[in-house]
Amino acid sequence: MKRTNLTLGLFGFGCVGQGLYDILNQTKGIKAEVKKICVKDRSKKRPIPLKYFTFDKDVILNDPAIDVIVELIDDASEAFNIVSAAMKNGKKVVTANKKMVAEHFDELLKLKEENQVSILYEASTCASIPIIRNLEEYYDNDLVKSIAGIFNGSSNYILTNVFENNLSFDLALKKAQELGFAETDPTLDISGLDSKYKLSIINAHAFGKNVPEENIFHLGIQSLSLADINYAKEKRYKIKLVAKSIKIDGELYSWVIPQFIDLNDFLYSIENEFNGVIIEGAFSEKQCFVGKGAGGHPTGSAVLSDISALTYDYKYEYKKYSQNNVPTSADNFLIEVYIRYKNENDINQLSFLSIHEQYQSDDFNYIIGNIDIKSLSIKEIKENKNIFIAQTTNQAVHSINVSNNISGVHKFKEAV
Amino acid sequence: MKRTNLTLGLFGFGCVGQGLYDILNQTKGIKAEVKKICVKDRSKKRPIPLKYFTFDKDVILNDPAIDVIVELIDDASEAFNIVSAAMKNGKKVVTANKKMVAEHFDELLKLKEENQVSILYEASTCASIPIIRNLEEYYDNDLVKSIAGIFNGSSNYILTNVFENNLSFDLALKKAQELGFAETDPTLDISGLDSKYKLSIINAHAFGKNVPEENIFHLGIQSLSLADINYAKEKRYKIKLVAKSIKIDGELYSWVIPQFIDLNDFLYSIENEFNGVIIEGAFSEKQCFVGKGAGGHPTGSAVLSDISALTYDYKYEYKKYSQNNVPTSADNFLIEVYIRYKNENDINQLSFLSIHEQYQSDDFNYIIGNIDIKSLSIKEIKENKNIFIAQTTNQAVHSINVSNNISGVHKFKEAV
Repeated sequence: MKRTNLTLGLFGFGCVGQGLYDILNQTKGIKAEVKKICVKDRSKKRPIPLKYFTFDKDVILNDPAIDVIVELIDDASEAFNIVSAAMKNGKKVVTANKKMVAEHFDELLKLKEENQVSILYEASTCASIPIIRNLEEYYDNDLVKSIAGIFNGSSNYILTNVFENNLSFDLALKKAQELGFAETDPTLDISGLDSKYKLSIINAHAFGKNVPEENIFHLGIQSLSLADINYAKEKRYKIKLVAKSIKIDGELYSWVIPQFIDLNDFLYSIENEFNGVIIEGAFSEKQCFVGKGAGGHPTGSAVLSDISALTYDYKYEYKKYSQNNVPTSADNFLIEVYIRYKNENDINQLSFLSIHEQYQSDDFNYIIGNIDIKSLSIKEIKENKNIFIAQTTNQAVHSINVSNNISGVHKFKEAV
Repeated sequence: MKRTNLTLGLFGFGCVGQGLYDILNQTKGIKAEVKKICVKDRSKKRPIPLKYFTFDKDVILNDPAIDVIVELIDDASEAFNIVSAAMKNGKKVVTANKKMVAEHFDELLKLKEENQVSILYEASTCASIPIIRNLEEYYDNDLVKSIAGIFNGSSNYILTNVFENNLSFDLALKKAQELGFAETDPTLDISGLDSKYKLSIINAHAFGKNVPEENIFHLGIQSLSLADINYAKEKRYKIKLVAKSIKIDGELYSWVIPQFIDLNDFLYSIENEFNGVIIEGAFSEKQCFVGKGAGGHPTGSAVLSDISALTYDYKYEYKKYSQNNVPTSADNFLIEVYIRYKNENDINQLSFLSIHEQYQSDDFNYIIGNIDIKSLSIKEIKENKNIFIAQTTNQAVHSINVSNNISGVHKFKEAV
């Protein structure tokens, strides 16, 4: 098979950019050379000679010798400007920017079609795990029932250290930042937003359905307390930040939420900056992909796999978009949650459809019950530091007698 | 992307054939229809009408309306006859026959080239896990350092039941057969041969190197005793049948052997009929793929993914064959092993290069030490029911001061 040599223009030279540069230099088999690197900060010391750098994006965007731009900057809207300009100039694109891809998904697809250029973004979701490529190439729509996983390395690193090493949340976050796992703004990681961007991208390749990220419910781990950790440990659970999409009767349910995980779940033993993705197939049953979800080298290696695929002229085909079994997006459904709170008035805006457990003490209180996921979306609940919410295990949900109950989802209309 | 409707001819209607037939009937999105099924046994009762069956392979092989043959029979040499005749007739092939693919690898490649027809065999290795496709499409040769895994669902099912449920080996084997996990001849599973066929296929797609299976050392679990299980449990190990290939300095080391596995290894928690494959990348570090490795539906779902890929005209490109970094095959190397034996004369043919532990008792004896893997290949050792051999954990090997020691391999020349 014919392989093309590629000339690259790189945007961004942070943790991933440098990781990629290292890898490219040590990987002789892949015929791709970085010609120029565009960075923002003129004063920062760089580990390689200054002649490789430019501060003007047009130097790369207008260079006809550059075939591929590799976009690895933080700022999602500037990233979109760069990527769309590059595609209009006929350049192929590799990007690791989940926010940019999730927020501009349809526009990027249109740019791809109009300009007939490939855009690949494996590194944007779960870093080193080849999940996009597998969903795109291997798992037919009919064969995917659900996707669930730990999609954020930084928050998983924090959870592991808080759970296993008794670190404080703040210290664990600080360590994650020092190790280069966290985004520049760590709110993205711990709030569940980062996982949601990834879930949105995964939905497109798993089910042929782009659920806009603003329509996906998300909750984070920012208000996790020692009381919650102790509760989980007592029950022999861990708490993981889980993103999931489940297809039931042609409808797609997607959300991101902290969840109690028991010993028998594949996600139980996924620790530190590792990510894990469970694909439930109609006939293959559960499959799990595990790998590092953060860090310069793991992310850089995914970028490199995309660059290598471009040397063979690979492009995503988005086959599932044109199949006739694309699900519709559901947003009204029940889940069973644990809600820990301080004062009754913290939660008086919430109405449970059924309550299964209730605990009160001088230190903290919790309720376990079924609730419409939409009612958790209000700002006063999401931003209240006194409240921590986690989905109970799937098993706990299964014990309630509601019809159409698969993997912890209840259809709202049937449960009322 | 254009999708072609396919007409299939099926060979074999055992566990996997029936699984595939079920799946095809329930999967409306994939446009492939079974026209005829060729079976051997005329007297066997069939769950679908007799008009679908034929007993003459030429009915399928000479039918111009059939685009694809799906080969799911036991007999590897008859399978090769069928597959090569089909390819010569311009038919595409999907097969699950690891023995046939491993033993005829170069011939199949030649048939593919000469007749310009695709042959896919994802189901042949680790059933539902898309390992071939990932190695073929995603992991560049430069990026793969090693592959290791549990490749045989039947023997893993036995090991789990012997270890966790205190079943006898024979009863566990019987259960594996009843559940349809074991081959018709279970020796293939428990001797490590089946894992070796799979490793041989994986080598071709991971490293672009077809090491003929007869050049790969293998040992099985057939002489596992309670003494070995107790020894492992005392040290908090499990025993797994592990197949592995490691690339060091342009040389490829491949072997199959029972191994002590500690808690921190991805393979530790892979139980029952599940398989697991660990890919160690140069920069992505360790990644693990887990899924069911046996059973009609998991294997059938892999066959279906191949059929689906053929509707998009997919073929393996064997890209790594034409890259200039293909490793050479090494067969002279040291590993650290635990050898349990009954009488001194059981092992007097073996010469250890170094001995690290020795234990003697009325019931059993063992030695732990470094040995040339070739010296374990003699028939008297392999077939002696009084001897059980397992590789010690990688960690145990790492504690010995030998240079160029990576993941439990010592280069012979340097260790002497």
